[in-house]
Amino acid sequence: MADFFRLNKVLIFGVGLIGGSFAAALKAAGAVDEVVGFGRSLPGLEEALRLGLIDRIGESVAAEAPDADLVLLATPVGGMAVLMQALAPHLGPQTIVTDGGSTKHDVVANAYAAFGERVGQFVPAHPIAGAENSGPAAARADLYRDRKVVVTPLPENSSVAVARVCDAWRACGAVLHTLTPADHDRVFAAVSHLPHLLSFALVHDLAVRDDRDMFFTFAASGFRDFTRIAASHPEMWRDICLANRAALLDELDRYTAQLATLREALASGDGAALEAAFDSARTARRAWAEGKLV
Amino acid sequence: MADFFRLNKVLIFGVGLIGGSFAAALKAAGAVDEVVGFGRSLPGLEEALRLGLIDRIGESVAAEAPDADLVLLATPVGGMAVLMQALAPHLGPQTIVTDGGSTKHDVVANAYAAFGERVGQFVPAHPIAGAENSGPAAARADLYRDRKVVVTPLPENSSVAVARVCDAWRACGAVLHTLTPADHDRVFAAVSHLPHLLSFALVHDLAVRDDRDMFFTFAASGFRDFTRIAASHPEMWRDICLANRAALLDELDRYTAQLATLREALASGDGAALEAAFDSARTARRAWAEGKLV
Repeated sequence: MADFFRLNKVLIFGVGLIGGSFAAALKAAGAVDEVVGFGRSLPGLEEALRLGLIDRIGESVAAEAPDADLVLLATPVGGMAVLMQALAPHLGPQTIVTDGGSTKHDVVANAYAAFGERVGQFVPAHPIAGAENSGPAAARADLYRDRKVVVTPLPENSSVAVARVCDAWRACGAVLHTLTPADHDRVFAAVSHLPHLLSFALVHDLAVRDDRDMFFTFAASGFRDFTRIAASHPEMWRDICLANRAALLDELDRYTAQLATLREALASGDGAALEAAFDSARTARRAWAEGKLV
Repeated sequence: MADFFRLNKVLIFGVGLIGGSFAAALKAAGAVDEVVGFGRSLPGLEEALRLGLIDRIGESVAAEAPDADLVLLATPVGGMAVLMQALAPHLGPQTIVTDGGSTKHDVVANAYAAFGERVGQFVPAHPIAGAENSGPAAARADLYRDRKVVVTPLPENSSVAVARVCDAWRACGAVLHTLTPADHDRVFAAVSHLPHLLSFALVHDLAVRDDRDMFFTFAASGFRDFTRIAASHPEMWRDICLANRAALLDELDRYTAQLATLREALASGDGAALEAAFDSARTARRAWAEGKLV
């Protein structure tokens, strides 16, 4: 990051955990003159203002966008298409738009549709940070400290545009990574979206049984860890699964085939095959936990 | 538990985490006169002796078993059949044998084969406690404090036999529950063995990819929780899966059918069905975490 990296005006759409923390981190770093917040909920915006996350509540995209350096779309991915359509006519020539969405293929498709030949001004990104809580009150200036942010640049992005988004996230303390949108979606389908689906499925399958009390009574620490993500927000995860449907279906099919192989080993009493798979998993899981390349 | 519950002599086969902690807890409670340890590893037995978990290292089952009140088999379930065969001829008329195995159907079958018409002296049990570590050094007198122990009595067990096993575990601070062996295996297949299999499968499926580094790089907290149990001991889990094969296959097939339903919803874009399943899971998971009946 340039020592003198500084943005004049940043617009944040969605001033909750992701957007509010981005604003707070930029302010804490002295990297922005003014943050203007937009959102669906006036009480949320007023709370963000009271907490000092934003300097003003925006009233008109047409009035605020033309002289903004950076716009962050930090709303659920399902709402981004409409926002992009609203923003597109009002971008200044220097305005760069980015997002904080958990999926990229769908966001990129929306961006091409909304921004057309100005799509080079949209740099897709995904900060890998989350927390139990949401809303402006959950926002923290250090949420992104040492956390990863994945940028998935488009062929149309200039190096200046990509650098501005990366510099802004670096000012928040984040570590930048680059993937293609397709690799991004494949990776997160495998390491995040599929585990959520599997965990939801396990708990749901127990919850619908008549004798579920007997099962839940004896669930212990392994169950607790495995199902922690099954307490995640249903609507949000519905949207993520649908937004990343193609990659998630691929991963689910691959996983189902893997389960079928293990089932066959189990049914035929092939202990060596079970142990080999378990050992492969344990070795990789331990290497990952220790931060070693695997 | 009777206030004056006290055992004269307890034999422990396997003086690691489970057996060593049982011994330590009985001693801490003043509920036993003498603990004699048996095991495959002389260094392990010597360590248990040094740590005060046991009072003596047993040299002869024939010499030690006849006047013992209680025998705990705390070895891997795969090794129990041989131990039972060795014990059977030497049980005193008052000697009660119990075990700490994670599966019950197979242990019970071994017990009928080994003890024959004296099978009433064997009371199957399963303490729901475990820890990251194993071996005598991991044993703790408070391992079972407020933890569940499931006893799965046989029709041949007298109430005196069952009470002795329950009282011993209560002296260790445990909370007793009763299930049939079949219900036990069904419950633990669902809430423990299947989650382990699913977690191992997920990590193994990533570990075998050429581009696995890209995936592991972006794995975050949800992945960490979901896969913690994939770092479990491969040989132990191979044995548990094989020992509980029938119930685990049933649960796996049920789960696979559940996944197929969710796949169909995902493929057809049926967000309402996805959200309903996720919401059912979240509601149950939260109620479980809060200790509420669900």
